[in-house]
Amino acid sequence: MIKANIVTIGNEILSGQTVDTNAAHLSTRLLTINVPVVSSYVVRDEIDAIVRGLELASADADVVLTTGGLGPTDDDLTRQALAKFLGVELELRKELLERIEKFFASLGRQMSEKNKIQAYIPAGAKALTNIGTAPGIMAEYNGKLLFALPGVPIEMKQMFKESVLPELERLAGAQALVVKKLKCFGAGESTIAEMLGTMMQRGRNPLINCTASSGIITLHIIATAGNKEKAGQMAEKDEKLLQSTLGELIYGRADQTLAEVVGEELARQGKTIAVAESCTGGLLAKLLTDVPGSSKYFTYGWITYSNEAKSSELGVPAELIQQYGAVSEQVAKAMAVGARKKAGTDYAISITGIAGPTGGTEQKPVGLVYISVDSENGCDTQRCFFYHGRQFIRLRAAQTVLNILRLKLID
Amino acid sequence: MIKANIVTIGNEILSGQTVDTNAAHLSTRLLTINVPVVSSYVVRDEIDAIVRGLELASADADVVLTTGGLGPTDDDLTRQALAKFLGVELELRKELLERIEKFFASLGRQMSEKNKIQAYIPAGAKALTNIGTAPGIMAEYNGKLLFALPGVPIEMKQMFKESVLPELERLAGAQALVVKKLKCFGAGESTIAEMLGTMMQRGRNPLINCTASSGIITLHIIATAGNKEKAGQMAEKDEKLLQSTLGELIYGRADQTLAEVVGEELARQGKTIAVAESCTGGLLAKLLTDVPGSSKYFTYGWITYSNEAKSSELGVPAELIQQYGAVSEQVAKAMAVGARKKAGTDYAISITGIAGPTGGTEQKPVGLVYISVDSENGCDTQRCFFYHGRQFIRLRAAQTVLNILRLKLID
Repeated sequence: MIKANIVTIGNEILSGQTVDTNAAHLSTRLLTINVPVVSSYVVRDEIDAIVRGLELASADADVVLTTGGLGPTDDDLTRQALAKFLGVELELRKELLERIEKFFASLGRQMSEKNKIQAYIPAGAKALTNIGTAPGIMAEYNGKLLFALPGVPIEMKQMFKESVLPELERLAGAQALVVKKLKCFGAGESTIAEMLGTMMQRGRNPLINCTASSGIITLHIIATAGNKEKAGQMAEKDEKLLQSTLGELIYGRADQTLAEVVGEELARQGKTIAVAESCTGGLLAKLLTDVPGSSKYFTYGWITYSNEAKSSELGVPAELIQQYGAVSEQVAKAMAVGARKKAGTDYAISITGIAGPTGGTEQKPVGLVYISVDSENGCDTQRCFFYHGRQFIRLRAAQTVLNILRLKLID
Repeated sequence: MIKANIVTIGNEILSGQTVDTNAAHLSTRLLTINVPVVSSYVVRDEIDAIVRGLELASADADVVLTTGGLGPTDDDLTRQALAKFLGVELELRKELLERIEKFFASLGRQMSEKNKIQAYIPAGAKALTNIGTAPGIMAEYNGKLLFALPGVPIEMKQMFKESVLPELERLAGAQALVVKKLKCFGAGESTIAEMLGTMMQRGRNPLINCTASSGIITLHIIATAGNKEKAGQMAEKDEKLLQSTLGELIYGRADQTLAEVVGEELARQGKTIAVAESCTGGLLAKLLTDVPGSSKYFTYGWITYSNEAKSSELGVPAELIQQYGAVSEQVAKAMAVGARKKAGTDYAISITGIAGPTGGTEQKPVGLVYISVDSENGCDTQRCFFYHGRQFIRLRAAQTVLNILRLKLID
């Protein structure tokens, strides 16, 4: 199996002004042809730093990809560094110069003197065509392949697809790889890891790994085999195994959100939904309407932040609020029932709780949330408790009610 | 000047499944205390790879920060690698174990056996408090400071702020440093850079730099001097200069959001607000209620996603919608006026537009948004146009209406 390393070049990455999305793009693409990225380096716009990056990256990989530093300004030093690393001179390629001049002419602009540097390539290297002005560079070094790609994502992606991928597919040959993603909600990373046991062992094929973000657990199944069909079968077999082990904890695939899955199911069943929010203050509706096309099933939402709003908009009796408090099972239920009645939808979901940081009491501390789902089959209310501050409490409350609705919809 | 290197640990980064936003966050934060990041490494979840990353990173920097690999599963190997690199054993810290057990108990859950590893720390190192289960680690090595932080962004950010920043400020020491941040909305990065001209020159003291994120421009004023008082005076002088140059483009300081500034002003003036949203689908209310204490001024919100909801909830005449369309000046105005009347608030703001990706026409393309602010002084409606996809159109629409309200409130 051939391996790759990535060198990202640019002060704007090291200063945090730009997030390095190029490395993630290259890694994902390389994985699809079974070329794992072993390590990745970010270096500043200085010749010696770039040369050191090339040395480190070429030490333990068969392929090195760099991005950035091919522009026309003084801090673009990748081609100079590459020449130094290869121990050769830069040479002017007339055909590249003509191409760059033509490029500017086609825009009706004069080529700046600074752009001339982009026609220089290390001796013996090959220029790669770019949709922008800067040609990429391919060079060989001690039997390893080096590719210098532009930092502008759209140019980099195109060049990778057109000039790098075919070279690497030839090099990588035989092995095929299939990656599947499953998304889970309702249990922590460690619980899921325990449920999966030896399935998550390191050397296993398919390899199963696990990442957590904002309460969502993503499982990756990475299957390697002699051909695509075989790898696909292996991944599918594991997918079924995970589904039978984790059951309803798995809510979706690939990059699906809970709101997307709920929305798909509502649309499929021709059902509609309304929401009534107190402590989440619009977040639940926002998550639902993040999904393109959500107007098909989402029609009404109320943010009844004050007690008066709960009464006037959703018909929650003022006495109920007075007797049990705005954060109570009774009020959550009355909100959902009121919202469904008023909106005339199939479902209505409500959230009322104490997101904090203030407003908590001993009996009703910060983090206490009641969530309700009302439908023609009646109203279900749950008492939940969340931690980690206002934003997380709000997010977790919204995710939890979406998950309850999901389970009802697929029941 | 002290320098830092970053080591990001995780196969999910190298496989491109996750984009490394932690490195950018750390770089930005380190710059504010005048600690540049020299290089950055991404290594896989293997002890030897992590040790090599630590070797490389500690070679040419005074401070090394790692993120990731502190979780409870078998592929979390940072603490083992750190112990190997330091040449010491891992030791169980009883107080950490108790803390983790308490954490699970507070969730009403049994601690998984797997989580026990998180109570181990290399001998001689210091544990750093985490809002999650995994403690961070601070260690010294050859006079250099090493920090191992969790990979979960919310945990990493909090730990960096609470435990790393104070240590580094002490280390950066001798020279006093004062950093001020000004937040701007309403112009792009390049426009602001042009307005500031030579003030943004590289070697200048105070150094002024500029970062952009989700439409918000943050200006950092970084003043260095022999003592805190002098540095403070320099920063203050520049702050005034920036304020006179940029005027109302500056909406706040430090980490203030537009919604916080609007909320503060509403609270100060004893005014209340309601919102009526169509295309933003709850996002505007969510931004307002992200702010703790927003129930003082925010009372009612409607998400009238369907035409029927606009009529039944806000009293927008059905004929008006039929005549001008739901996305029109007339309907935006009727939504705001209706919301204010129904909620009995001092202000009401409304948004109606086409967030896309579908639903656009030649006359009313995706990105067209009408926003209205109604108050006792009448109703102002603006026609706006935003780009870059559904999420960005929604965010920019919400930010723009908050900014209009801000300008009205401070007028």
